Amino acid sequence: MTDDGKKQLSHQKKMEKLKDSVDASIASADIERGVSILLTGNGKGKSSSAFGMVMRALGYDYKVGVVQFIKGEQLSGEELYVRDHCPAVRFYQMGTGFTWDTQDRSGDIAAAQRTWAVALELLVDPSYHLVVLDELTYMLSFKYLDQETVLAALRDRPENQSVVVTGRGGGSELVSWADTVSEVKEIKHAYNAGIKARLGVDF
Amino acid sequence: MTDDGKKQLSHQKKMEKLKDSVDASIASADIERGVSILLTGNGKGKSSSAFGMVMRALGYDYKVGVVQFIKGEQLSGEELYVRDHCPAVRFYQMGTGFTWDTQDRSGDIAAAQRTWAVALELLVDPSYHLVVLDELTYMLSFKYLDQETVLAALRDRPENQSVVVTGRGGGSELVSWADTVSEVKEIKHAYNAGIKARLGVDF
Repeated sequence: MTDDGKKQLSHQKKMEKLKDSVDASIASADIERGVSILLTGNGKGKSSSAFGMVMRALGYDYKVGVVQFIKGEQLSGEELYVRDHCPAVRFYQMGTGFTWDTQDRSGDIAAAQRTWAVALELLVDPSYHLVVLDELTYMLSFKYLDQETVLAALRDRPENQSVVVTGRGGGSELVSWADTVSEVKEIKHAYNAGIKARLGVDF
Repeated sequence: MTDDGKKQLSHQKKMEKLKDSVDASIASADIERGVSILLTGNGKGKSSSAFGMVMRALGYDYKVGVVQFIKGEQLSGEELYVRDHCPAVRFYQMGTGFTWDTQDRSGDIAAAQRTWAVALELLVDPSYHLVVLDELTYMLSFKYLDQETVLAALRDRPENQSVVVTGRGGGSELVSWADTVSEVKEIKHAYNAGIKARLGVDF
């Protein structure tokens, strides 16, 4: 047998084994319902991942709602895109500016609660296939929202609705609630090398 | 002073300090150029994050190219969305199926090289603001593409072009090339609790 032939044979054997294991785990995952996803950690990519899932859901013409719990006053590309191109997406932004800019605790709490009221409308409406609660975790860690109230609403949502929660932290209760938890770890960030945040990539 | 008054004062002081530190680091990041981003790790959210950045760039009407290096034959929501709603996006998919399905090493290498040729067209074209090379890392770890050739093209791209590379692994050379590296760690996955991958969320 030639060297290439041997390589192909060994490759084929490895791939057959991998295929068996992939096929077996696909076959064993047979519960069909909406999933709950927590994207946490200090690295770049949590909110953008949530918006990628928005695009994914829109690819199948599913109904989507997005609620952003904390944001600067600066426009973001995803906000512009959704507002201009996706009129069917319910989009709501707290829009009080970052908490370190406002420096007003009771104003922040009122804004968080107004925003939560919108989230709650989505979380009881089975017509929404996907609900994104972007940066919700901060509202819990700042104690602007009551954790038990939030978790109860997340747990009681319609069976076929998927929910994505993003933000650093989140705590053990949110981790045990979620079916899927990814921690986005910052290995390095352009920012620390003096590179300015990039329009159309970073925001 | 009332308890609420004290809480507000302490909150305000903390937030003033945080604002100073945020403002200072924003001011020190003053290099304006395209950024290179590596999204790696074994967790869910790498490709969706890249597609979120596509949405972000499209929000500003920037030109975007997406090349996917490995994918099952099953359609994905992001593919459907981009094909149906974003005719301006250059979209190319290797489309040979997962390597554990094909079990054909030389066929896979030829497909990887055809796909790389498309990526290269984008990487020399300054009109592209954002180029996504989805799941490129596997092509390097399987040695379907030559790492030095790939890295040279990534380094020599137009100054204002941002590039996002996704996929597990990636190796130290890719990590040192990238301005920003996020490792998406799987803390848990719905799949392992027997929950089926969800249309419009997982694919």
